[in-house]
Amino acid sequence: MAVIGGGQLARMMAAPAISLGIELRVLREGPGAAARVIPGGQTGAANDPEALRNIARGADVVTVEHEHVPGEVLSRLGTPAHPGAHALLYAQNKLQMRRRLTKIGIGCPRWAEVKTVEDIERFAAAVGWPLVLKTPVGGYDGKGVAVVRASGEAQRWLEGLPQNAPSALAEELVDFKRELAVLVARGANGEVTSWPVVQTEQRNGVCTEVIAPAPLLSDLDQAHLRQMAIRIAQELDVTGVMAVEIFQCDGAFLVNELAMRPHNSGHWTINGAVTSQFEQHLRAVAGWPLGATATTANWTVMVNLFGPATGEDGLREAFAAHPGVKIEMYGKQPLPGRKIGHVNATGDNLDNVVRQARGAAQIINGQELRA
Amino acid sequence: MAVIGGGQLARMMAAPAISLGIELRVLREGPGAAARVIPGGQTGAANDPEALRNIARGADVVTVEHEHVPGEVLSRLGTPAHPGAHALLYAQNKLQMRRRLTKIGIGCPRWAEVKTVEDIERFAAAVGWPLVLKTPVGGYDGKGVAVVRASGEAQRWLEGLPQNAPSALAEELVDFKRELAVLVARGANGEVTSWPVVQTEQRNGVCTEVIAPAPLLSDLDQAHLRQMAIRIAQELDVTGVMAVEIFQCDGAFLVNELAMRPHNSGHWTINGAVTSQFEQHLRAVAGWPLGATATTANWTVMVNLFGPATGEDGLREAFAAHPGVKIEMYGKQPLPGRKIGHVNATGDNLDNVVRQARGAAQIINGQELRA
Repeated sequence: MAVIGGGQLARMMAAPAISLGIELRVLREGPGAAARVIPGGQTGAANDPEALRNIARGADVVTVEHEHVPGEVLSRLGTPAHPGAHALLYAQNKLQMRRRLTKIGIGCPRWAEVKTVEDIERFAAAVGWPLVLKTPVGGYDGKGVAVVRASGEAQRWLEGLPQNAPSALAEELVDFKRELAVLVARGANGEVTSWPVVQTEQRNGVCTEVIAPAPLLSDLDQAHLRQMAIRIAQELDVTGVMAVEIFQCDGAFLVNELAMRPHNSGHWTINGAVTSQFEQHLRAVAGWPLGATATTANWTVMVNLFGPATGEDGLREAFAAHPGVKIEMYGKQPLPGRKIGHVNATGDNLDNVVRQARGAAQIINGQELRA
Repeated sequence: MAVIGGGQLARMMAAPAISLGIELRVLREGPGAAARVIPGGQTGAANDPEALRNIARGADVVTVEHEHVPGEVLSRLGTPAHPGAHALLYAQNKLQMRRRLTKIGIGCPRWAEVKTVEDIERFAAAVGWPLVLKTPVGGYDGKGVAVVRASGEAQRWLEGLPQNAPSALAEELVDFKRELAVLVARGANGEVTSWPVVQTEQRNGVCTEVIAPAPLLSDLDQAHLRQMAIRIAQELDVTGVMAVEIFQCDGAFLVNELAMRPHNSGHWTINGAVTSQFEQHLRAVAGWPLGATATTANWTVMVNLFGPATGEDGLREAFAAHPGVKIEMYGKQPLPGRKIGHVNATGDNLDNVVRQARGAAQIINGQELRA
């Protein structure tokens, strides 16, 4: 199996690939990429057709660890790609995603395609300021997204776009109570599974913490959201893992984003579910039967680790203080603000589990959590 | 960290090494060894001093995945080795092990060092026929062990030994009720942990199935055996994981064998304990704090997979029939009788868990389990 992208998501596919006996070949951005723990990879850009053809050659199937892979290349590799370009499109282009989800009746924030400041003002007249502007393509972790409060700010944001940007996405600023995420996996044969809905915390557009399952979410809402995510995966013909990020509002659930790959909101599954999102992604992409998604603990809490960190000393200290936590390091240079790993803690008592996960993360991060 | 030996035990160290950010360098017997999933290894024999020096060079610490490493080389690598040669000796040489355990008062089968058939007859006069003969060095998985019923058989077994074999180990044939195993880990700093005692099934000296924890073992016996294993690890100054194989007899527990490395009786910990034996071994050898060893399920059952097997089709069929089982493939040619992987199942009801683990194994093995 060829994996396009050599970051932490490819890296975390290595363990289940070893267990399943699936040989991975990773196209990495550079020799220092997180996925250098996997033998036999190649170095190259994910948007370089030649590099894509090279990594696909001889593989039985191709998958991705991020969305920045040109669909027109992906669909002409001569090797099956999962998710396919026709599905990946909706994770690559937020305008296409909004159009499609709206068409199939999935709740979204109010949105409009905008090209000029007049378009934005017209949309603002309907939804009010402030509102959210997004570049349809290429954003992640809060990049390419801005909250603007008035025409002038909107104008400056538009002017900052690349010359050839055809249009942007404007969305109402949703007054949500909290953010949730649902993870589903759909096999090449159409089999589909979902994990329990989780609660996610973001700071500046970057996920910091996940609680699984989402506390105080009714069984009915759990079932509704899992079914909604399954329906999206089916309608969009997704193969592999897909994450659906959701705003919980008073009386409504609105879809924020889609990701068609293992996702930060699903790292808890490594230690908190029978089948992790990484194993499930491999099984789905390889066309194998999917695994059980039941939780293995009442509560699992995931806390992200960010650079700069305290290095191996911090890791030892965290383990000494919290012998029950599981730590996943991504093998990345701990640049300030960069995700370099995560902590999972599991148990019966949510307060204790939160305390352990945050406690370990705080030691490794070497600072008070930005909570 | 350098690992001597490239079989499935080294292979199963890969996943926790990735999580912990520990870089492994494996000395493999051949390019097709199970641990080829780990980049940057070298090919060479575990008893070749030059190969050992090469793999140790630049590593901060050396460990082993099997006992067949010459202690005199291991102790002069210039790199710390865990377990050290002085401890590994007792897993390499069964006579030394019996002498030492007897000296520190650990219950063992009655035993004698024997060089001639007369020695064996004298021992048989005390313990009766049949009895067990073992080569002190080099046996594993039932190899180098024979049950002999009379002098003539003993004579032929002695004649089959290498010319230079100084002596052999004779042991009474223990009339045990069942076999148990205890796994402990001891850190380079002396910290020590143990996992719950498990019940093991053997066929022809090869482990086929493990139930964790051992059913119908009293809390007192659980505690006693874990404490005994901890004491052995401390007395022998073991660093890393050690498995103690035990015969449960009427009113007594007798130590059968010691292994100073992750062990087949501990594969259940990958899916059934907070910290797996492989992660714990790395943490112990690296001098890091050890992890919690609590179980994550009421019951975990491990069933070994043996060649010849049904290949990927069998794997798919097993997953389809048993979505909750976890399967670990070792990446080995499925030669008849060879261990090629294992299945773990977990749950609340032991009968169900046994049924799942055996059911999946049976499908992959393509035959009725030899039960």
